Amino acid sequence: MDFDQFRVATPTSFELAKLPTDYDGGVKDDDLKELREELWLELAEWQERLYAENKQSLLVVFQAMDAAGKDSSIGKLTSALSAHGCHVKSFKKPSTLEAGHDFLWRIHAAAPKSGEMTMFNRSHYEDVLIVKVHQWADAETIERRYDHINNFERLLADRGTKVVKFMLNISKDYQLERFQRRLENPDKHWKFNPGDLDERAKWSDYMHAFESAIGRCSSDEAPWYIVPAENRKYRDVMIASVLRDTLKAMDPQYPEPDFDPTVYTVDSIS
Amino acid sequence: MDFDQFRVATPTSFELAKLPTDYDGGVKDDDLKELREELWLELAEWQERLYAENKQSLLVVFQAMDAAGKDSSIGKLTSALSAHGCHVKSFKKPSTLEAGHDFLWRIHAAAPKSGEMTMFNRSHYEDVLIVKVHQWADAETIERRYDHINNFERLLADRGTKVVKFMLNISKDYQLERFQRRLENPDKHWKFNPGDLDERAKWSDYMHAFESAIGRCSSDEAPWYIVPAENRKYRDVMIASVLRDTLKAMDPQYPEPDFDPTVYTVDSIS
Repeated sequence: MDFDQFRVATPTSFELAKLPTDYDGGVKDDDLKELREELWLELAEWQERLYAENKQSLLVVFQAMDAAGKDSSIGKLTSALSAHGCHVKSFKKPSTLEAGHDFLWRIHAAAPKSGEMTMFNRSHYEDVLIVKVHQWADAETIERRYDHINNFERLLADRGTKVVKFMLNISKDYQLERFQRRLENPDKHWKFNPGDLDERAKWSDYMHAFESAIGRCSSDEAPWYIVPAENRKYRDVMIASVLRDTLKAMDPQYPEPDFDPTVYTVDSIS
Repeated sequence: MDFDQFRVATPTSFELAKLPTDYDGGVKDDDLKELREELWLELAEWQERLYAENKQSLLVVFQAMDAAGKDSSIGKLTSALSAHGCHVKSFKKPSTLEAGHDFLWRIHAAAPKSGEMTMFNRSHYEDVLIVKVHQWADAETIERRYDHINNFERLLADRGTKVVKFMLNISKDYQLERFQRRLENPDKHWKFNPGDLDERAKWSDYMHAFESAIGRCSSDEAPWYIVPAENRKYRDVMIASVLRDTLKAMDPQYPEPDFDPTVYTVDSIS
């Protein structure tokens, strides 16, 4: 399957509304399920190579409107991976300490070390999304932040950290349905926050903010993928497939042993 | 006293050898001593304003050849300041965790929060000084690091962190004398390391590396000062004076009280 149509790897301008949110790529449900299982196994193998090589690293960013499935995407992905060298970091409202620094300070601190993968549940992009929509910073500050983000992602790339960014794309109607489900199910109430409705009311402002952020902060070293996220199997396949291909292209190598394995024999202890 | 002749605030090329290392600015020793005391008092007042305002911050970088007086400069300066909101961070050989990240990762983590001052004893500039001299990274990597440093310092500036960088400039002969003193005095042996002589042997390579780093990474928001460092009183006066002027220009304000001070009376408890 080819996901190039959903890849943004150079600065560009585009309309989110023109991209699908519910999509199966013409593949049957059962086949998507099977494919997903295969990809997760492959991904685990590539992760082991990355960890063994201990030179490069992978940063995966997830951004989306509320209820688009960030938690579920990350949860499924990390289940497939080894907890050795795989981290998840969620970014909420900055703490007092975090707010006392530049917006990339807490982000940089959580960047993966060599051999490791880190998934960001929200990220530095919040500082050009929610902050832009609410005008908590002026337009010039937002402009400068795009540059700071590009510079920062280039710094990571130069050290061997590949950055892959997923925007989980859903429709306004789909969010409505998910919110209603959260309100109807007491076990999901913790996931709902009345403030979410205020953000929902600014839907089109958010779409414009996403279009600018993705359009301004895309590069070959740190591409965005706009994932049609309503079909969860297709979503999972796309994410796993993109990450598998990314790791494949990074081509991590098992290190040469610094001993001669033929010299040693392992005896059972009598 | 005017220190503009020692200020580098735009990209430039220059020769360190043409700048003085032993200099008193035409001021008598006793007068320098008196001036230094006055400046330290002033500096403490400005630091209090910075701390009370809790919006901006100050990062002071010290770089120099061995035995030029980094420890002593920082020690004297911090004695004059309040430990509240004043930090010193020394950067040695990167740890395994630090080396598993980009070169600015550990630097960014130590950047001052709003209201605070941090002194860096060595810094990210080691990654374009010792690393360049020993060719631990190729020329292209060093070039890219200059850009990364400029981008990083601009990120700090945009958040209200002023960066001031001091290169303590000494002659080769002066270092010889200081090394001899360290060897002759058992109380100073801990400050000497036979490897220091290997670095000394690369003196002119270091001078070229300093010239490139300072020439490439100078801006109005993050200027370098090349301090004639052999006369320690002049050195201290220059450092204190530059920092006093920097804080003055930052113009930190005591915050408006959120209460009416005339409403309250404080009684002695009977």
